[in-house]
Amino acid sequence: MISFRNLGDDWDNPVVTDHGVRYFDDYLPGTSYDCGSVSVSEAEIISFARRFDPQPFHVDPGVAAGGPFGGLVASGWHTAALVMRQLVEHYPPEEASLGSPGLDEMRWPDPVRPGDTLRVRASVVEARRSLSKPDRGIMKTAVEAVNQHGRTVMRATAINFLRVRPELDASGA
Amino acid sequence: MISFRNLGDDWDNPVVTDHGVRYFDDYLPGTSYDCGSVSVSEAEIISFARRFDPQPFHVDPGVAAGGPFGGLVASGWHTAALVMRQLVEHYPPEEASLGSPGLDEMRWPDPVRPGDTLRVRASVVEARRSLSKPDRGIMKTAVEAVNQHGRTVMRATAINFLRVRPELDASGA
Repeated sequence: MISFRNLGDDWDNPVVTDHGVRYFDDYLPGTSYDCGSVSVSEAEIISFARRFDPQPFHVDPGVAAGGPFGGLVASGWHTAALVMRQLVEHYPPEEASLGSPGLDEMRWPDPVRPGDTLRVRASVVEARRSLSKPDRGIMKTAVEAVNQHGRTVMRATAINFLRVRPELDASGA
Repeated sequence: MISFRNLGDDWDNPVVTDHGVRYFDDYLPGTSYDCGSVSVSEAEIISFARRFDPQPFHVDPGVAAGGPFGGLVASGWHTAALVMRQLVEHYPPEEASLGSPGLDEMRWPDPVRPGDTLRVRASVVEARRSLSKPDRGIMKTAVEAVNQHGRTVMRATAINFLRVRPELDASGA
């Protein structure tokens, strides 16, 4: 059972909120999936950046205040990791996921600041069966995250390999 | 002073190993920068994935053994974060970095497995002064990471904003 609701003026596509077991065949281009929200604290921003992206505007609020963003902002990789968590919980289920070869056009239009809440949406833009591996399909997804002010903080086109529904897999795999 | 050394058959471009203060003007298309190496343990792979990408093949060695990669592999976002750390330490210095609007064509051709050592290289592919903001330039960089077997585990085209050398900045900023 798939349910839809309206996300309002900014995110006004039908959005799937039911997250049962799905396979490649269940993802239809044009369908958007609500992937929930996540908040991020200053401590988390600094902790992630100290480990992976220790630029002053990610780790030092004092220096960041006079830096290019006028304050501390999250590493774009931290934003991407937070968005990924939402996708794992709400988008391709583990029964079907065969990993990702990568993604295209990743952008961080607005920075993520301490206390921000990010809402994540995934929209299927393309889905085709693999010609070489009949047990799977290749799906392209427009991933978007907006903050509590409706500003886009990340977008990307993700590529994923997904299993086809077992009874439709003629490969015998 | 910029020094070069030869990385051998696979990575045979001249590679900059000196990492002093540099500005936009110092990055010349065609030049490659050695960004050092990083190793990753099973415990780190599982810890990162539990927090950000808890798919079975990233968090559970037992389940992963029968999964699509035949064993535990790092989240692509973990790989990206590890690569970012190398770039921060070896590529655009903090004096010049004005952040990044995003990146294109990110790919994870081969998986990263526990115990792997990744070698990171950054090659300038394009550099142009900003028309709207005279204090900066826009640089595109081919980022590559290879494992100890010479297999590429990540590549992407990164976009960065960098300050021009202060004495060349006619904006008075």
